[in-house]
Amino acid sequence: MRGSEFPDQLCSVARSLEIVGEWWTLLIVREAFFGTRRFSDFEARLGIAKNVLSDRLGKLVTTGVMERNSVPGRGNPGHYVLTPMGRDLFPAIIALMQWGDRWVHGAASAPIHVLDRESRTEIARMEVTTREGRPLGLRDVMVAPGPGADDALRRRFGNADSTP
Amino acid sequence: MRGSEFPDQLCSVARSLEIVGEWWTLLIVREAFFGTRRFSDFEARLGIAKNVLSDRLGKLVTTGVMERNSVPGRGNPGHYVLTPMGRDLFPAIIALMQWGDRWVHGAASAPIHVLDRESRTEIARMEVTTREGRPLGLRDVMVAPGPGADDALRRRFGNADSTP
Repeated sequence: MRGSEFPDQLCSVARSLEIVGEWWTLLIVREAFFGTRRFSDFEARLGIAKNVLSDRLGKLVTTGVMERNSVPGRGNPGHYVLTPMGRDLFPAIIALMQWGDRWVHGAASAPIHVLDRESRTEIARMEVTTREGRPLGLRDVMVAPGPGADDALRRRFGNADSTP
Repeated sequence: MRGSEFPDQLCSVARSLEIVGEWWTLLIVREAFFGTRRFSDFEARLGIAKNVLSDRLGKLVTTGVMERNSVPGRGNPGHYVLTPMGRDLFPAIIALMQWGDRWVHGAASAPIHVLDRESRTEIARMEVTTREGRPLGLRDVMVAPGPGADDALRRRFGNADSTP
């Protein structure tokens, strides 16, 4: 990735934030999850200035999170829809929403519920688990260098008893 | 919440982003997950300017995500540690990290792996599921007004067949 904002940050969180870290950007993605497609609907529902929205949508298209589909009809500005890369932000957005429900709004005053369409029951709380489904807290995990680690990461996390 | 950046956004994603949406802020939380506690270590490991780091740590303390523990010893600047509210960002950070691994770095070059400390196996991919554990994609869920919905949200999502 060129023009990186975090050149020294060899970490997927940092690289993800380069793409979706700006506040409006993630709210636009959330709005797309809710089914919004038209520029004018994003503008009205987010209460965002036209020029800011235009800039952020352009960035989302450039980075591959959204794509602009042309719609037949003269003067029709097209629809903005999520790509597979964008749709895959679903777990991250839900995890952040659930955190806000617990710690900002308070669970008893959550503005929206996300339901399984089939059973009409609320989705589960997002958890970090083993592949067998055993829940893991922060103290139950450790960090190891991955295949893309550089020397600094290998030095830092190469010890099997390392943090967190 | 006072001084809201998104006064019209009655949504937990928006409110969460008010707290952790700024890029450096979430990277500081990630660094704290990795075990970093000292100001000078955050500074060195993130490559962040002192004044920016000071500002962001202060904001994290004010919003309740981190707390500053005094450490005995003259001139000791204290440790910054996550509160329960901060530790609860674990699933959101892992979801974002996994997204970056898949779409930015590519899974084959992930910089780090997060392992279950006990089995030394990689954690599961974060998924949205029903409470019974059935995986849910974006098209399998629907949005309904929660107890804290306002009229606008109720109008928008009150229809049981609403988006996404």
